[in-house]
Amino acid sequence: MLFRQLFDSESCTYTYLIADESTGDAVLIDPVREQIERDLRLCRELGLTLRYALDTHVHADHITAAGDLRDRTGASTVSCATGGADCASIRLGHGGEVRIGGLTVQALATPGHTDDSLSFLVENRLFTGDALLIRGCGRTDFQNGSPAQLYESVTQVLFALPDSTQVYPGHDYTGQTMSTIGEERRHNPRLAGKSRDEFIALMNNLRLAPPKKLHIAVPANRACGKDPMPQGV
Amino acid sequence: MLFRQLFDSESCTYTYLIADESTGDAVLIDPVREQIERDLRLCRELGLTLRYALDTHVHADHITAAGDLRDRTGASTVSCATGGADCASIRLGHGGEVRIGGLTVQALATPGHTDDSLSFLVENRLFTGDALLIRGCGRTDFQNGSPAQLYESVTQVLFALPDSTQVYPGHDYTGQTMSTIGEERRHNPRLAGKSRDEFIALMNNLRLAPPKKLHIAVPANRACGKDPMPQGV
Repeated sequence: MLFRQLFDSESCTYTYLIADESTGDAVLIDPVREQIERDLRLCRELGLTLRYALDTHVHADHITAAGDLRDRTGASTVSCATGGADCASIRLGHGGEVRIGGLTVQALATPGHTDDSLSFLVENRLFTGDALLIRGCGRTDFQNGSPAQLYESVTQVLFALPDSTQVYPGHDYTGQTMSTIGEERRHNPRLAGKSRDEFIALMNNLRLAPPKKLHIAVPANRACGKDPMPQGV
Repeated sequence: MLFRQLFDSESCTYTYLIADESTGDAVLIDPVREQIERDLRLCRELGLTLRYALDTHVHADHITAAGDLRDRTGASTVSCATGGADCASIRLGHGGEVRIGGLTVQALATPGHTDDSLSFLVENRLFTGDALLIRGCGRTDFQNGSPAQLYESVTQVLFALPDSTQVYPGHDYTGQTMSTIGEERRHNPRLAGKSRDEFIALMNNLRLAPPKKLHIAVPANRACGKDPMPQGV
């Protein structure tokens, strides 16, 4: 399994490239539109064929490269069966999967940050989008977010995985690149030792400013990152 | 083997935490002074004992946390036997090593970016400092840098390692986190297919501005990141 973690410094977004080295079939998780040339060059240099571009959810802070990757490579775009981007080629629910060579990318429904949030599991690597961050979690105050739902998703779905499962989040703002399920169960300040009610109260009192790109990124991402109002329309 | 890549966004520096999971003994490679609280907290949370703080070279763009880590944890600081920081507890030459539990951190002399540049090899992971970057290399125009020496270091020492060796650089400015020796041999635009003379000409014509922190960072780092002129002296 070939694995690369890539970073967009403007939005602090992590993009992940995963491939079966024997067949060269690859996926990108959460590709960022501004980084498409970097990511396509890396695929070319490594001799990979991009099969799927997956989004963990409809992002509010950056525009996905998924639609452009589909246009330029023939890859299929993948989003959540519930809500999300109905422009996607493939829409996965809980337990849904796509395969590349001998690897399986399994979707786990982890709503709460948004109603369409998926995590993806590939062997012992878990890509959590904004459901679970390193020592944090995504906010729950727009896009049908729900702290109660996020608490269930993290504690019942993600924390049910083995402690050694490697956690690769959708963002980090402090220079950390990965964690593990065991570490987050023990040390995540929003979740470790917190009851459901304490978590809900904490999330309902964050009082965060809206993401700067909210009103641009959400409609664009519902259209797979393509301009939702094409020129001339 | 526990492995964590950490990033300082101001200087685009990668710091690496490596530990033997069975004994909890750990090293930090190229720790950044501004990130010391993050890195010590991570060691605490993971139950690790920091044994060594290693610098790949005397940095010109950020101040090392090595001296402060030594003061606060009792870890030994490690620098190059040639040039470098003579304040260090341990000074390694080519082939020198330190051990943590069952892991060996082996030093490879790779001068050229600076005269004191070491790379560190731990199993199949190579920490190259600024000798070899992802699709690039460190500049060679100060601190006794030498393009001829860097060409020898990279092509004779680093490219002699197996193609599958994972390359973890001291910096990246484009959001890439790792590469391999095979990839850099084939795709590094400064080195792939370039003769020694072509490389020297290329490096001598970069015309880069000096690093902003050059005159602060170099004397501080020669003192292991501690104030080289203590107050009152």
